[in-house]
Amino acid sequence: MEEENRKKRILVPEPALRRMPSYLAYIKLARKDGMKYVSSTHIARDMGVDPTQVTKDLSYTSIVGKTRVGYEVEPLIDELENFLGFRIMDEAYLFGAGSLGMALLHDHGLKQFGLKVVAAFDVNPEIVGKNFGGVPVYHVDDFLQFKEKGIQIGILTVPVEKAQEVAHWMVKGGIRAIWNFTPVRIKVEEDVIVQNTSLYAPLAVMFNRLHSKE
Amino acid sequence: MEEENRKKRILVPEPALRRMPSYLAYIKLARKDGMKYVSSTHIARDMGVDPTQVTKDLSYTSIVGKTRVGYEVEPLIDELENFLGFRIMDEAYLFGAGSLGMALLHDHGLKQFGLKVVAAFDVNPEIVGKNFGGVPVYHVDDFLQFKEKGIQIGILTVPVEKAQEVAHWMVKGGIRAIWNFTPVRIKVEEDVIVQNTSLYAPLAVMFNRLHSKE
Repeated sequence: MEEENRKKRILVPEPALRRMPSYLAYIKLARKDGMKYVSSTHIARDMGVDPTQVTKDLSYTSIVGKTRVGYEVEPLIDELENFLGFRIMDEAYLFGAGSLGMALLHDHGLKQFGLKVVAAFDVNPEIVGKNFGGVPVYHVDDFLQFKEKGIQIGILTVPVEKAQEVAHWMVKGGIRAIWNFTPVRIKVEEDVIVQNTSLYAPLAVMFNRLHSKE
Repeated sequence: MEEENRKKRILVPEPALRRMPSYLAYIKLARKDGMKYVSSTHIARDMGVDPTQVTKDLSYTSIVGKTRVGYEVEPLIDELENFLGFRIMDEAYLFGAGSLGMALLHDHGLKQFGLKVVAAFDVNPEIVGKNFGGVPVYHVDDFLQFKEKGIQIGILTVPVEKAQEVAHWMVKGGIRAIWNFTPVRIKVEEDVIVQNTSLYAPLAVMFNRLHSKE
């Protein structure tokens, strides 16, 4: 809990939060190029966004830019990574260790951004009881026994017909934030955080754009 | 090309396109529940969106609802899947077969939604020349030789510091639509379609929401 307390507690608007990881990626590239300072004008120009938006987004953090030179790169990276919660490891459960779920278990990227999957739940007898990438898979019926562990983040990668039911059980078992990879708009209590990541929405857009050009 | 021509050519607004795969998932669930008709009011209520928006979004397709009963489920599924391009297989190249890239190679879900990765490109000598999930990995330097195959979709899962450079080569080799999984805002010619899927933006939002509640 000591560590968790270090994560910032300000409630930041979602669009700003969603832009910040891109700023972070940009500033890390600037560091690789040997730059000591970046200005919001530079960030904005290179990323194709409005400079006042960059300044405003960064103002949610405690970092302060200097007139004419901008932000010092190294402290800005530190501050952004801390602010976004990427330096503290949050633990999560995975629900549905099928093709996409297994893929996420094997993606080391998540750990670099502060998320560690510590257990997975599924119903498939061929994988329940085994370990994948160091992560044990349990039967979903046993999930409620894990409630006391206090893990709050759940990744939802079950088949669509199970999404709503499993989401219900996740919340019952103490999950407070659901990262929903299914195309189903799950309904949960209002105080549960839901983030939808659809892998199929971008496909629909790409197919339409490509084929409407032909 | 015969098959590709069947994909609809109307240019549909992106927000509508992004919502449609969720409608499709909802309607498929309704079919599993034995329903023969769904109304936009039902879809809207269960998904927590506005009914007029559902009607408007669906009006881009050729499907017509009937007064009082709504849309017939089976033809609506057919029409949506065809309209969204999920029933025709588009081929794609993967750029960067690291942890996330490999994960996507093993996700069978993409094929169900009309995308088949037919080759991957990387620089890692340990994987170049091998097959993963039936997909051959080539050295990225050889990519331009593939131009004549006419594949238009590229999935970008390289490290951030390579994202812009590889995006440039993708376009040079004939890629017209880039599915960008890196947090970098890549800059490409205006007529190239870019869809950004960030796995880290949702994390930033979940961490902030969870920890601002504590």
